[in-house]
Amino acid sequence: MKNTPIVYHPIGIIHSEHVVAEHTPIQPIFARGCKGRAEIYPQFAEGLQDLEGFSHLYLVYHFDRAGPAKLLVKPFLQDVVHGVFATRAPYRPNPIGLSIVELVRREENVLFLDGVDILDGTPLLDIKPYTARFDRIDTTRNGWQDEVDEEAAQKRGRRGYGSK
Amino acid sequence: MKNTPIVYHPIGIIHSEHVVAEHTPIQPIFARGCKGRAEIYPQFAEGLQDLEGFSHLYLVYHFDRAGPAKLLVKPFLQDVVHGVFATRAPYRPNPIGLSIVELVRREENVLFLDGVDILDGTPLLDIKPYTARFDRIDTTRNGWQDEVDEEAAQKRGRRGYGSK
Repeated sequence: MKNTPIVYHPIGIIHSEHVVAEHTPIQPIFARGCKGRAEIYPQFAEGLQDLEGFSHLYLVYHFDRAGPAKLLVKPFLQDVVHGVFATRAPYRPNPIGLSIVELVRREENVLFLDGVDILDGTPLLDIKPYTARFDRIDTTRNGWQDEVDEEAAQKRGRRGYGSK
Repeated sequence: MKNTPIVYHPIGIIHSEHVVAEHTPIQPIFARGCKGRAEIYPQFAEGLQDLEGFSHLYLVYHFDRAGPAKLLVKPFLQDVVHGVFATRAPYRPNPIGLSIVELVRREENVLFLDGVDILDGTPLLDIKPYTARFDRIDTTRNGWQDEVDEEAAQKRGRRGYGSK
């Protein structure tokens, strides 16, 4: 069994208006209007060239406040237990977060974002351009997610955001 | 600057027919028919419960043979230099790979996959369900990718696969 530890270092930090996990929307689609910034450390800034041509980005980040991993979880959107890998819950063996956010503009090493569902101060590991050719899958089966109707999803997914 | 190292451990290993990086398709859309398996280590198998309801998965993995990071790269699909974060090239400061693959079936702790663009023996870090509600963005601007026509993309993206 290959189990060599893998070591990464943050390339930057995510700033957002979310400071309490329990009130943070669970996905960007429930966080429209939530502005935020990704500040890339200066030594990596050159790697951002031409990123501004893309309207949407994947942010890959470290859930630094997730707590211990659980293999079975009850997701935010449904009161049914599922394997953690069948959910996007943060309590994962490797607590890696993945969000598709909107890139509003770039100012040198700072990305101004919308749809930010990420806690303030979260370490950023990687950025990838969302590319329709690769990432938009038109026909999918979505497991237990297909059982959650849109109204319930919006209500539970926002976790209070927007009702203030 | 927060730069604490972040340590992850593989949750499993990806098996594929690709053993030479230079002949490996660069994205799943260029790897249709490329079968593979993700073998999850037994201690994490419980986390796979209900994953089989989803037709597509994100695999998050470690590019263990990527070589040193480059901040400016010429992507496979275009002879123009871009910042590495505006591409999906493997030579990243944190060499994290992200692929959307098709889940054909699950047999206990083994996932049988199609559309595998990943080198044989690659360490797997995380699995997330592809969820149309979260991940299918219908209107995007795709930067330099919008300048690459479909015929050129198919030809360059397959890197010889399927022409044998």
